[in-house]
Formats: sequence, structure tokens, C-alpha cells
Amino acid sequence: MIDKKKIDSILSEYDSKKLSIATLCSHTSLQIFYGAKKEKLHTIGICTNEQQKKLYDAFPKAAPDEIIMADSPADIDANELVSKNALIVPHGSIVEYLGKGLDDLAVPVLGNRKSLMFERDRRKMYDWMKKAGLRVPAIFNPDKIDRACVVKHAGAKGGRGYAIVHSSEEYHDKFPDAKDVMIQEYLTGVRVYPHYFYSPLSTKGFKTSSGHLEIMSMDRRFESNVDESYRTSIAGVPIKPSFTVVGNEPIVLRESLLPDVLDMGKNVVETADKLFGGLPGPFCLELIVDEDLQFSAFEISARIVAGTNLFPDGSFYSLYSHDGGMSTARRIAVEVKDAAKKKKLDLICY
Amino acid sequence: MIDKKKIDSILSEYDSKKLSIATLCSHTSLQIFYGAKKEKLHTIGICTNEQQKKLYDAFPKAAPDEIIMADSPADIDANELVSKNALIVPHGSIVEYLGKGLDDLAVPVLGNRKSLMFERDRRKMYDWMKKAGLRVPAIFNPDKIDRACVVKHAGAKGGRGYAIVHSSEEYHDKFPDAKDVMIQEYLTGVRVYPHYFYSPLSTKGFKTSSGHLEIMSMDRRFESNVDESYRTSIAGVPIKPSFTVVGNEPIVLRESLLPDVLDMGKNVVETADKLFGGLPGPFCLELIVDEDLQFSAFEISARIVAGTNLFPDGSFYSLYSHDGGMSTARRIAVEVKDAAKKKKLDLICY
Amino acid sequence: MIDKKKIDSILSEYDSKKLSIATLCSHTSLQIFYGAKKEKLHTIGICTNEQQKKLYDAFPKAAPDEIIMADSPADIDANELVSKNALIVPHGSIVEYLGKGLDDLAVPVLGNRKSLMFERDRRKMYDWMKKAGLRVPAIFNPDKIDRACVVKHAGAKGGRGYAIVHSSEEYHDKFPDAKDVMIQEYLTGVRVYPHYFYSPLSTKGFKTSSGHLEIMSMDRRFESNVDESYRTSIAGVPIKPSFTVVGNEPIVLRESLLPDVLDMGKNVVETADKLFGGLPGPFCLELIVDEDLQFSAFEISARIVAGTNLFPDGSFYSLYSHDGGMSTARRIAVEVKDAAKKKKLDLICY
Repeated sequence: MIDKKKIDSILSEYDSKKLSIATLCSHTSLQIFYGAKKEKLHTIGICTNEQQKKLYDAFPKAAPDEIIMADSPADIDANELVSKNALIVPHGSIVEYLGKGLDDLAVPVLGNRKSLMFERDRRKMYDWMKKAGLRVPAIFNPDKIDRACVVKHAGAKGGRGYAIVHSSEEYHDKFPDAKDVMIQEYLTGVRVYPHYFYSPLSTKGFKTSSGHLEIMSMDRRFESNVDESYRTSIAGVPIKPSFTVVGNEPIVLRESLLPDVLDMGKNVVETADKLFGGLPGPFCLELIVDEDLQFSAFEISARIVAGTNLFPDGSFYSLYSHDGGMSTARRIAVEVKDAAKKKKLDLICY
Repeated sequence: MIDKKKIDSILSEYDSKKLSIATLCSHTSLQIFYGAKKEKLHTIGICTNEQQKKLYDAFPKAAPDEIIMADSPADIDANELVSKNALIVPHGSIVEYLGKGLDDLAVPVLGNRKSLMFERDRRKMYDWMKKAGLRVPAIFNPDKIDRACVVKHAGAKGGRGYAIVHSSEEYHDKFPDAKDVMIQEYLTGVRVYPHYFYSPLSTKGFKTSSGHLEIMSMDRRFESNVDESYRTSIAGVPIKPSFTVVGNEPIVLRESLLPDVLDMGKNVVETADKLFGGLPGPFCLELIVDEDLQFSAFEISARIVAGTNLFPDGSFYSLYSHDGGMSTARRIAVEVKDAAKKKKLDLICY
Repeated sequence: MIDKKKIDSILSEYDSKKLSIATLCSHTSLQIFYGAKKEKLHTIGICTNEQQKKLYDAFPKAAPDEIIMADSPADIDANELVSKNALIVPHGSIVEYLGKGLDDLAVPVLGNRKSLMFERDRRKMYDWMKKAGLRVPAIFNPDKIDRACVVKHAGAKGGRGYAIVHSSEEYHDKFPDAKDVMIQEYLTGVRVYPHYFYSPLSTKGFKTSSGHLEIMSMDRRFESNVDESYRTSIAGVPIKPSFTVVGNEPIVLRESLLPDVLDMGKNVVETADKLFGGLPGPFCLELIVDEDLQFSAFEISARIVAGTNLFPDGSFYSLYSHDGGMSTARRIAVEVKDAAKKKKLDLICY
């Protein structure tokens, strides 16, 4: 992984009055450009095909000020981005397509690229969640599966390829050649995905040992085919469940559960401080709430999540802490401006 | 129950220019404080533990102007609240935790505390719904259960402990010691929860015999584990359904059904006039719509419901009747100011 | 069908400074009147019963400026509407209740009434979808049903009467006298309903061969009883699935799928150009997304759909292309004003 000092050195030569927000044209990029433009920051879209550019004809107010074409995410030209004082907003597609390639990219990344390494490696993520005191599903050895389990592959692939198994036999039958998978106990309850923003700079929000935490919004993921599998079941159409994320729906949480959501977020942030030097910026906990109102966490997304796309003009939570339409993406832009003003970009980038 | 004259006498000594909106810090309190502050009313939060106060660090624009600590909801200091010209907004947590304790509390409660007595007592609520002409599920004697039924306990407990039984045997087996339960036929269809506001003072809205009715918003409750039980079913994980409310999702209704929703609300309000002197303020009908677009009601919430938390800045319905972001909570604050101005607080408090 | 020249001749005599937006008081009429009023256009509601008028007491900001009573939708007085320079916004209830009666109505209809003929006739609609290159479900001969199929009747009836069959025997058993039905393969995946607006006048948006396309919003329909059938299943209550649309829920799509959504919309619009002279105004594709992120289309609604009612003040998509709260209905009003100014009403009416 590129040295933090190298990134800090790049940052030190940036013209803090001409910063750019750059990201790959996918995942949450419309929201990211829209939010940055509201804060009057220059925006750069990295497109890997002409297909992606269509969106900006349809959504001109979310179009980047400038587009850079790249043959693939791996071909991002670091020098060009640095010459434009660019800060990359990492999102799920960057994590998926760049993978370890992000580790050495010589461009400042908003947040902490070490956190994305923890997101990418399910065992590291698990360790993080457990050290943060979160209830997590039991992990099974392939040969000792004694209940329903979810088999998950490495990386953020939007749920594609997840599968359910109920025994070791079924596992070996379905995945004879599996490598780098995690076998998690299937938890019962319902899913909620709170969208957090952690700032080491802000003086407002829920206090952690080294900064302040906010809840920006919340969603429930909508997965094909499982989230309408009841329709096929009742219609008598047999299907195999699949978990490809295709969209997101808004959900507001029982108010008495919000203190727990804050506590979990705080613990995740403070554990990140210890494990890898912090988690500045947006993140999300993938949670299950059971009938006794107990939370379990099955994943951490250490960057902006697609569920925030529901709220480009703010949410039922963000308006309790911000005037105007404060999305997660716009909050990132506000943070960049605040850090630039305080000459603390190194605290929110790596 | 405390005499209405006693409450009116307290109200008559209030300084109508220094009214406070007070509530327990739970359920819909963020929305209530946020809405009251928008209307420039003083707000008082009653906290029973430090945990609740966390929310106000995270959500400063929804923090009460003043916090009063109480060991438990039963220990609310009436004199202190009265000295601050406080009007209590009753919500689901107050109904649940104070229970009958609310009956004698010597502080003006917004709405009619008699209506909460009807909400608390399922048999009274049933009588109210039937007298209002609503279609209601059949009620079964424990020894005559011949179809799927929901067993419901007294009070607003957010769905916790509800269970399904299919026969008297199963009922006695599951609930050998049950007291004060109601056994309702299980209705098929889908649930919708319209959020009403009834004003005896306003001259706008849908006319009832003694005032005007509005529809503020609408939601569908999200319950653990039942509302993702299809995921466990298709995954081959056997579960017992549970009905603990953990959140809410927005839903807009087929427009041609709205006149029926208005008529049902009107009938509920007019029946409340006759049964216990009226239902000023917010309420909700828990409805099932079947495939023939017929409504049945299975509960009334005689106060603000948590589903309104989706809409602190107004909804797809409220903007058809109000400028700006008119939530149910803000509507309450508007009503308080209107009543104070007209010297009619006694019409909207008991 | 009334001659296009006749409609153009009526339009040529309209006072373009005194245009009215007229529609039947149902379906999306609140949104339509609200949006048109925001654009300061005169609005006319056609009511067929007193029941409908209730809504305007409850929702005064969405009330039409003027109400015309008609015994039935078929009794709409064309001369009266023409004398008021009225342009009719066709919606699902008009398509359902007027049916072929719309063909000859001597009042300009916004959009292209030929498109509604294609919507009404499932075989024409299918032809349209296939020519547009959309993946569509297989169609079955009643005597050759070899898998789960949906049986659909003619016209927009909001899903009422749809049924599932699994064999020819079951079909003939359930529908011994069926006429004018379509038997579609039951597709698995999840449903999404993008709301498009196509303008032959605008110079902004996603370019098609003859105009520009926008995405206004998106929803998922909520049908009774199927969309809560998992609750009855887990409760052990046997039901027969039904598909009556009772409401709509918001959903935001995985961003990387939006280019496909634009392409499908473009193909539908360009095919409409060839088949029947174009599709100006709003329309919707009823889509299934499968686990491989492939779309299939099972219907086209060639006019405003009820899912847009979620967004009378704009959506997470419309704010990327428009300032202010741009609903589909308001977009219609903007288009009318633009066409009137450019003297091109004939391009957006038939």
C-alpha cells in the first residue's frame, strides 16, 4: 500500500482553492457530483465506457464538470488526477473493480484506504466487527455446517453469487472449488442499513473519542430475486433464492433503537482508530434487527453506500442535523471544504 | 381519571405566550421537538435515562430546549411541568409506559386522554370501531377458535408478543395463563396506516359534524421477523412469525381509495364525539385493504404514530393542504398556537 | 378514431393564453391539478360523483379551479371542454373507464391517443415492446401452457382479475369463457417501474431520434393480497394470490442499471414514432430485473402512472434534471406552456 506520507506530500502540493472531487461514473456518482456541485467544488467523472456518459444527458445537474475516459478502472491516470488537485471518493464499484489496485493508487482518496482493505477481506472485517463489540453471525468451517448459512465471496459484488446452504454436503456440492469464501450463519429478523458520517474535524454530532458521528439516512436493500420471492412462492413457481442488489427503499427506524445505532457506529469508529488509523467519512452497517429489538451486524461498508442515493436532497434524519438538503455526498463535499480551510486534508484522506 | 374541569382550570392559568410542548424522549419525540421548534414553541424533553440524551447530540435541530430527568415515566413531576405552561404530546411510548398513570396526571395532555383509555382497552376500541361503522375482524372466544387468529395483548407494545393461533387447542397450549387478550380473526390483504389530523378549530379540511379532518401522510409498518419472513422461507430456515414493529416505510394509496379513507376517519371522529367527547389532534387507523379494495380496520391509535417519523418535512399528502414542510408534529404545534390565539386550548386538551 | 386534423383544427382555435388542463377526478388527478397550478395553468376536474369532490376539501392545494359534473366518463361534454381551451391529461382511470370512447372524443388529449389504443390492446402492446427490442415474457396458447403463467384481461384495470395458472387444464377450469385475455409466462426477479417523460420539444435530456427523454421517478407497485402474502404464508393461512394495485412505494435503482433504463425508454419512443406517430409526454415501463441484472418488460403504460403520486414535489431522479419540485404532472404543465409558446401544441396533443 502506498505510504501515507506520499499521499500527504501530494496533498501538501494541492491548491486548496482548486480542489476537485473525482470518482468512477457508477454506484453513487450522480449523487456525488450533484452534492459536490451544490458546494461549488469542481467535479471529475472517470468513465470506462460511453454507456456511462448517457446518464449525464439525462441528469445534467448531476453531470461532472469534466470527464476523463479510462480503458478500465485499473487504467486511471494518477498524474492527471493529481494535476487537477483531485480527491477520489471511493464507492462500491471502485472497491469492486479496482480491488487491491486502489492500495497503490497515487491519488489522495477521501477516507482511509486501509478501511477498504478491511472491507475487502471478510476475515479482517469480521475481526473489526467483533472488536467493536457487535453481535455477528457465527462463522462455519465448510465441514461443520449444521444450520442454514450464507456463503459469501470476497469483495463488494452487490450480493451477486451469494447462496444459502444447510449442510456441509450441500456446500461441497454447490461450491466444489470455492476459495476465499466466508460461511455465515443465516440470521433471522429484518435488515436495516444506517448511513453514518464520521468527522474528525466537526465539533457537532455524537461524540466519539476522536471526533463526531452523524446519522445521515437509512435504507433497506432490494435484492433480486429474493425480495419478491414470496410472489413466486404463492404463485407456485419454484425458484432458487439469489441476492443481487438492484435497488434501495427508504425506511425509518423505531426511535428507541437510534441510541443503539449510534453506539454501534461509535464503537466501529473507535475500533477503526485502533486497528488502522481511523474511518473518516461515510460508512454503513449492514444490520439485522430481531423480534427482541437486538441488532446483529453482518457487514461493514467502509465508504458511501448506494442506499444513500434515495436521499440526494437529504433525509428524515439529516434534516435534524443540517439545514438544506444534506445528502451523504454533499456532506463529503462540506467536509472537504472544512478540511481545506483548516489545512487538515491529511486527516480525511489517505 | 382527573376531572376535565381541573385540567381546564390549570389551562386557564397558563401564560398563553409562554406555552411549552413536552413529551417523553422516545417514539416520535425528535419529530415533535423539531416541529414545535419550527413553530417557535418552547420544548421540554422528559428523559428517563442518559441513553436517550445521546440522540440530541446527533440530532441537534430536534433537541428539546430543556430536558427534565425522571426516574421513570410514572415519576413525571406534574407541578414542574405545569409551572412551565407545558402541554404533553402523548405518543405510543407514553401510552405504553404510563398506562393508566396518564389518567390522573395533573398536566394538560394534547388531545383527549379519554381516547387513550379507549386505545388501551381493546374491547372499548372495538366498540368504538364498530360504532363508527368500520369493518372489523371477527373476535373469537378462546374455546371457539376455528380459523387463523392473531392473539393480542393489552396496550401499545409495538406488536411485541403478538402470536398466531389456528385452534383453541393451540391457543391454550401457547397461552395457558393469558389474561386480557383479544383474539382477532387473521385478515388477508395488505396493511396501510393513514395518519389523520382532526381539528375542532380549523375551518379548512374535510368537514365533520364538529370540525375538520386532514390526511397528513401514510406508511406501512415494518415488523421483525414477519416482514422479511419470505427470505427465511425461501432459504429453508424455519421460523415462528413475530410482529415487533422496528420501522416504517412510506406508501401512497390508490387515489380512488382516498374518499373511503376520509369517510372512515370522519366516522371515527364523530363516534369519538359521542362516546367520549371527541378526538382532537392526530390519530391513525390500522387498515387492511383486500383484493376487492375493501377496507377493514384492526386498530385505532388515538395519538401520533411512529409512521409519521418518515415525514418530518411533510409528505406527498400534506403538501396538498399546507405550504412548507408540514409534519404531523408540526401540525400539532400549529394547532396549539391557533388554540392559544383563540383562547380555546380547552378544546384540544384534556 | 377522430382525425388528427380535426384535433389540430380545434387546437388552432384555442386561446393559447387561456389553456386549461382537464382530467377525470381519479388516479393521478391530485398530482395533475397541483402540478398545473404550480405552473399557473387553469385546471378543470371532471367528476362523476360527489364522492370524488371530498378530496378537494381535504386537499385544497390540489383542487381543480373548476369542476364539471358528468354522469359517467362517457358523458364528458366535448364542446364545453373545447370552449374552455381544455387539454385532457389521460390517466389510468380514463383509459379504463372511457376505453375506446377516448378514440373519438373531440377534445385535444395530451400525448397521442393512438398510444392508448396500443396500451389497451395487449397484442398491439406486445408487438410494440418486441419491435422496441425489449425482452418480453413468452406468450402461451391456452392449450399449450407448460409452466406458470399470468392470465391478463384487456385494459388497465389496476391488476384486478389477474390470475396464475400452471397448465392448460387449470386455465380452462378457471376461465371457461375467457375472451381477449393474454397468457404470459410468469417471470421471476423483482419489479421496478421507471417513470419516463418524452419531449419532442425540449433540447435537454437523453437524445432520441426525434426528441429528448427524461427519467422523472421510480416506484414499485403494492398489490393486494400478493404483496403481503408472505405474512399469510408464515401464519399458516392459505390464500389465493391476487394482484389488485392498492398503492405504490418508492425505490431507487442500482445506478449502473440506469443506462439500460434510458436505452429501453429510447427504443420504446423511437418504435412509437414508427408505429403510430410518437409518444409525447409521460409513460412507464413495467419491468422485471433478474439476478443477472437483465431487464424484461411485461407492459407499457402509455401515459402518467399512479406511482408518480409518490413524488408531487419531485424525486431523487427529477432533481438531477430540474430545479424545484418537478413531478411528472408538473412536467406535463411545463411542456404545455413550452408548446404553447412555440405554437407547437399539435406536436404534443392528439
